[in-house]
Amino acid sequence: MYIVAEPIQRVIDALVQLPGIGPKSASRLAFHLLRAPADQVQELASAIGELKANIVYCRRCQNLTTTDPCAICSDRNRDVRLICVVEEPLDVVAIERTGAFRGLYHVLHGVINPVEGIGPDDLRIGALLDRARVEAPAEILIATNPTMEGEATGMYLARLLHPLGIRVTRLARGLPMGGDLEYADEVTLSRALEGRRDI
Amino acid sequence: MYIVAEPIQRVIDALVQLPGIGPKSASRLAFHLLRAPADQVQELASAIGELKANIVYCRRCQNLTTTDPCAICSDRNRDVRLICVVEEPLDVVAIERTGAFRGLYHVLHGVINPVEGIGPDDLRIGALLDRARVEAPAEILIATNPTMEGEATGMYLARLLHPLGIRVTRLARGLPMGGDLEYADEVTLSRALEGRRDI
Repeated sequence: MYIVAEPIQRVIDALVQLPGIGPKSASRLAFHLLRAPADQVQELASAIGELKANIVYCRRCQNLTTTDPCAICSDRNRDVRLICVVEEPLDVVAIERTGAFRGLYHVLHGVINPVEGIGPDDLRIGALLDRARVEAPAEILIATNPTMEGEATGMYLARLLHPLGIRVTRLARGLPMGGDLEYADEVTLSRALEGRRDI
Repeated sequence: MYIVAEPIQRVIDALVQLPGIGPKSASRLAFHLLRAPADQVQELASAIGELKANIVYCRRCQNLTTTDPCAICSDRNRDVRLICVVEEPLDVVAIERTGAFRGLYHVLHGVINPVEGIGPDDLRIGALLDRARVEAPAEILIATNPTMEGEATGMYLARLLHPLGIRVTRLARGLPMGGDLEYADEVTLSRALEGRRDI
């Protein structure tokens, strides 16, 4: 016997699997949805249901996109001689929000993390090197998170890219160590973009 | 142009409408879903999509249920001479979890709140009075939240129920004022059930 009705329990069970949502929050959300307008609930359901259907990786920058190449890589007004390397798609959003960067991106989809068993081959590093050889950009800006793993991944990339004769830079300090790039405010992130230095 | 792909933005837009989920949490959840197994994401979508389809109010206790009467009202082992009045379906879950209550419930679906324009007619109070007359329980235990509105609603119900010759009780103190019944721990809630007093 379910204490709460089965369709409600089913939503709770599905929600508790999401990060940061415990059993109490899941219950609250489920009962909120029961009271919410039907079209709003259906929109949430179908948005989630259709999320993965049309998403592909951009063959150039490896970002998630509905068009390949993505809108940023297809934009003729971007500076193709500057590539910014980030860990995750959300980092692209954070940097775009500053309006202070007009180059292209390359999304690694993670960082090197031996503890979790994530090595260079698990990331889009091969694609970055191929791209660096073919496109020969003037500069590659490493914008990994200011964490142990982010810094180590940046140093690793710099060692691979230097032999190609490409200037490799990193975001200026100003980002607090141990923090997360995605949560940086626009001003801090803008200053870090302006003050980037050679490594 | 979307900075994040449209299907992702659509999920973010739908999630930020939920209580307690801001733009950053919504983004995190959307990208988490992108990486999650397809069947888990589809289960979440269909659970939400089918949430409202088969839910009805139990004609007896007014709780949300897939069967009418609900599983608790249909249970021959419950004490039909004791009715516990709660604000919301989640409060039933909280009390059931203690294992310390074997009576039936009545769900008001809110409290009297003049500031928000919620009067007695907006709640399942008429159904409670009809039920009290027909079923003539020995005791009605008011288990509204220990808030201003919850207490006022309890006093209002006691005034209506006393003329019917029914013993009206409330949960013992032990619940912190201004708190929320749903978040009380099992021990505190069990003590409050045991120590209920006449009003």
